[in-house]
Amino acid sequence: MAKTTLLLNWYTNSYHTPIYAALALGFYEQAGIELAVLKPDNPGDVTEIVGLGKVDFGVKAMIHTVAAKAKGFDVTSIGTLLDEPPTGLIALKSSGIESFQDIVGKRVGYIGEFGKRIIDDLAKLANIDPQSYQTIRVGMNVVDAIDRGIVDTGIGFINFQLLELEHRRGETVFLRLDQLAGLGCCCFCSIQFIVPKRMLNEPELMRNFLIATQRGAAFTTEHPDEAYELLCQSQPHLRTELYHKIFIRTLPFFSRNIRNVPRDWSKVGSYCRHLGIIDSNFDIETCYTNEYLPITPYSDLPAIACCLEE
Amino acid sequence: MAKTTLLLNWYTNSYHTPIYAALALGFYEQAGIELAVLKPDNPGDVTEIVGLGKVDFGVKAMIHTVAAKAKGFDVTSIGTLLDEPPTGLIALKSSGIESFQDIVGKRVGYIGEFGKRIIDDLAKLANIDPQSYQTIRVGMNVVDAIDRGIVDTGIGFINFQLLELEHRRGETVFLRLDQLAGLGCCCFCSIQFIVPKRMLNEPELMRNFLIATQRGAAFTTEHPDEAYELLCQSQPHLRTELYHKIFIRTLPFFSRNIRNVPRDWSKVGSYCRHLGIIDSNFDIETCYTNEYLPITPYSDLPAIACCLEE
Repeated sequence: MAKTTLLLNWYTNSYHTPIYAALALGFYEQAGIELAVLKPDNPGDVTEIVGLGKVDFGVKAMIHTVAAKAKGFDVTSIGTLLDEPPTGLIALKSSGIESFQDIVGKRVGYIGEFGKRIIDDLAKLANIDPQSYQTIRVGMNVVDAIDRGIVDTGIGFINFQLLELEHRRGETVFLRLDQLAGLGCCCFCSIQFIVPKRMLNEPELMRNFLIATQRGAAFTTEHPDEAYELLCQSQPHLRTELYHKIFIRTLPFFSRNIRNVPRDWSKVGSYCRHLGIIDSNFDIETCYTNEYLPITPYSDLPAIACCLEE
Repeated sequence: MAKTTLLLNWYTNSYHTPIYAALALGFYEQAGIELAVLKPDNPGDVTEIVGLGKVDFGVKAMIHTVAAKAKGFDVTSIGTLLDEPPTGLIALKSSGIESFQDIVGKRVGYIGEFGKRIIDDLAKLANIDPQSYQTIRVGMNVVDAIDRGIVDTGIGFINFQLLELEHRRGETVFLRLDQLAGLGCCCFCSIQFIVPKRMLNEPELMRNFLIATQRGAAFTTEHPDEAYELLCQSQPHLRTELYHKIFIRTLPFFSRNIRNVPRDWSKVGSYCRHLGIIDSNFDIETCYTNEYLPITPYSDLPAIACCLEE
C-alpha cells in the first residue's frame, strides 16, 4: 500500500486530535489508507507545497486557502477541521490595551501578510492614523514576542495563544477580530482540509480519507477524554496541563460533520475582496466542495433513503 | 418593564449555561429584556404551553417541535441551543448488550412517544420481532430506571445520561440512534428556541432575545470556565463533579451562532415522515426561521456591508 501524505498547518497540537484519534483507532487503515503525517517547519509553506501537489492532503486556514487559489496555487478545500475558532488581538492586562483604539503608540505583532492587512484595515475603519502604531511580523511566536517585550499585542486564537499567554504571565485581554471587523463570525480563521488539483482525479481516496477523519472528529467530540489520551500517547509532549486546557477549550470548535459551510466561504470571499486579496471576478465557490464527504459513515444498517438526500 | 418568560425543556442543567451566562452578564437586561426563566415539572408539557402562547419563549428538541406543529400547536423555532447532541441506547456493560440485536429478550426504556416509535422502527429495520423485546416508558429517569433494574437499557444523551450512569455504576455501552437509523447525524436531538404564533408579531422582542442569547452562547464557548462558574453561582446544586463533566462534554454541542440548520430540519422532516409523525403534505420549512437572528451582535464598529449578506 502506498503511503498517503497529510501536511499539517503547524506543529502537532491539540487542534489535530481528530486526526490522531482516527490514526490510533485504525480508522484510516480501515479506510484502506496508510497515512503519513508531516509537519511544516514554516506554516507559510503549506499552501504552496499542497498546491504543487507534493503532498496528497493538507490542513490550512480558510483565508489562506482563498489567497493560495488567487495566487495560482490550485488548492481545494474538501472539509473542515476547526469551525471558526475566534481570533483576536491578545495582550497582557498590564499593557493597558482595553480597546482597539489603544493600539495607538503600541507595537502590534502579526503572523503573516494577511494579519498585517487585517490590522491595517481595522485601523482604517476605526479612523486610526496608520503612522500611529507599529506592526511587527512575529510569525507563530506571538506569545513569546509579548512575553519578551518585543510587541505589546498580537494576533492569536482565543483557545490557544491566549491560554499560553495567560499560563505564562497571568491576566490577559482579548479583542475579537471578527467583532472589530463587523463580520459577525470568525469564519476566516476556520481550518480546512485541502487537496491539490491532481487529487480531484482520486475521488475514492478523498472519500476514504474524509470517512476516517470524520469518524475521528465524532470520536473526539463524543469521547473527549479518550481522544486526548490517544493524542498524548502518540505525542507525549502534549501531556501537559496547558495543552489539556487548549484541548478542552477547542472542543466547541471541532467540526463534527467536517462539512464546508457555504455561508462562511461566502463571507470570507467578501472579506477577501474587501481586503483586496481577490478581485471581483474571483469565484469563491471554486475554493471548496462537499462532494466527497461521507453521508452515513458508520451505520451498519441500511440507510433510510430519504435521509440520504443532502 | 414587563417580564418576558422562557420555559426550559427540563430542570436547569449544564445544557442551559448560555442562558444563565447571558442572565448573569446582564445581556438580556442590556437588550431591554427582564427574563423570567421557568422550568416544567413534566417536560412533555412544554410544546403545548408554548403553542398556546402561555409563555413567550420555550426550549425544546427539534423532533418535538415538528410533532407539536403537526398536532396543531403552532410553534416556530427561531434558533438553536444544542446542535445534534448524540442520542442513543445507554446500558451497563454488565447488561451484555453490545449491539442493537441484543435488545431481544430485554426491557428497553424510553422517554415519551417518539422514543418508542424510534425504537420500534429501528427494530423493524433490523428485522427484530416486535414481540421479542419489551418497551417501558421511563420519562426523564432512564438512569434511575437502569440503576434500579427496572429496564436493561434506555434512550439517553451521550453527554448527559450516559455520564450519569457511568458515574453511578461504572462501565457503560452506548449505541447511537442516528447510526442505527442511518441518519448520518443526530439532528432530531437538536434543541431549539421556540415561540408561539403570537410572538411573530413581536420581531423586536425576538431579535433582542436572540442577541442576548447568542452573546451568552459565544461567551460560554469562548470562556467556558467563567460561564460554568456563573451557572453554578445561580444554581449551586450544579456545582458537582458530575455536572462539570456534563458541561465539558456538552461544549462541542453548543450552537455558537444559534442558527437553525436547514439541512437538519430537512433530514428531521424526512425522518418524521418515515416514522409517520407527519404526512407528505407537511411543509417542514414552516417549523423554523432564521429571520430574527443577530448578524453582528457585538461589533461597535460599522459593519462591512458585504458581510451583512446572509
